[in-house]
Amino acid sequence: MSIEPSDIQIPVAISGRHAHLSQRTINALFGRDYCLSPEKPLSQPGQFASRETIALVGPTGRIPQVRVLGPPRSEDQIEISRTDERVLGLDAPLRVSGDLAQTPGIFIEGPAGRLRLEAGVVRALRHIHMNPTDAGRLGVKDRDVVRVSIAGGGRALIFDDVIVRVAPNFRLELHLDSDEGNAAGVGPGTVCRLVPRS
Amino acid sequence: MSIEPSDIQIPVAISGRHAHLSQRTINALFGRDYCLSPEKPLSQPGQFASRETIALVGPTGRIPQVRVLGPPRSEDQIEISRTDERVLGLDAPLRVSGDLAQTPGIFIEGPAGRLRLEAGVVRALRHIHMNPTDAGRLGVKDRDVVRVSIAGGGRALIFDDVIVRVAPNFRLELHLDSDEGNAAGVGPGTVCRLVPRS
Repeated sequence: MSIEPSDIQIPVAISGRHAHLSQRTINALFGRDYCLSPEKPLSQPGQFASRETIALVGPTGRIPQVRVLGPPRSEDQIEISRTDERVLGLDAPLRVSGDLAQTPGIFIEGPAGRLRLEAGVVRALRHIHMNPTDAGRLGVKDRDVVRVSIAGGGRALIFDDVIVRVAPNFRLELHLDSDEGNAAGVGPGTVCRLVPRS
Repeated sequence: MSIEPSDIQIPVAISGRHAHLSQRTINALFGRDYCLSPEKPLSQPGQFASRETIALVGPTGRIPQVRVLGPPRSEDQIEISRTDERVLGLDAPLRVSGDLAQTPGIFIEGPAGRLRLEAGVVRALRHIHMNPTDAGRLGVKDRDVVRVSIAGGGRALIFDDVIVRVAPNFRLELHLDSDEGNAAGVGPGTVCRLVPRS
């Protein structure tokens, strides 16, 4: 097995805890016909962090100020870390975004209301966004499971179990949750490289 | 470069945030001639989690209920994760235990008092405890930097920058902080294996 890394640098981003909400849920938490206010664009085209935040309320704890991302989605999805799970008292599975069957629910609160989601709490499987051209250069395809190496920061490591997500509008980027980013010493400008898996 | 792992299984333990205190600091926080009450033995022989906890108070936040480990040490040392740093508003370096030069200070509080440590806050460098016999079997020596593979949990990874610590009374065990343990999906019974570094 060889672990010579690829020459292609992939930017690394940490996704903090966040919520994707349906328009129906947005209305319930923020008011009728409420429109999210984009605060800053995210690296993936068309996506934005909104000014709006919600609180998550689990069996053992509460996490305020959780950012709502936009635009609204068809399904509610709350992405948290293992650290967050321990605060909330939940056990959420590792999932690819959108795969919400058999995920736990949670109470969420906004300035105009509170409701219980019946499902939708996940820990995001670490994944790499890329477009088909990048996938060709890297020799991978959608849903491949790959291994990436992150050097520097005194905490070099190789993540296995990284899912490739390919779509025409995706920008090349590895997404980690906050626990994973901290474990690898990720900071501004950190990059990773693919390493062969077998 | 080969990454065939060793056959020898090394147990994995997560170290939550904790404090090693000098008797002088214990007296200041808990009262004159105070003696820590052992609550449960730790895996390293002679070490114990005490019943006592302290609060950490940083520029931007406070973390209560931080466990004091015993027995007392000659120097105060507070071990936290990157996640904790962000709560407290501190930037602590990655260090081997006991290497406290140029580390930040912090306010700490106990039931009988509060004081400011001038130094001693660190993030622990991930490390493997072992005795000389284990070191011989694994082909490593004290202060070697090694690479370990953790499988399972849907979050397989290989940690680089792992320091070997050899002493006659050490028991074979990889110590990770909570961020690292979460990133690797560590649970009860998780083991790791050495993989060659080059």
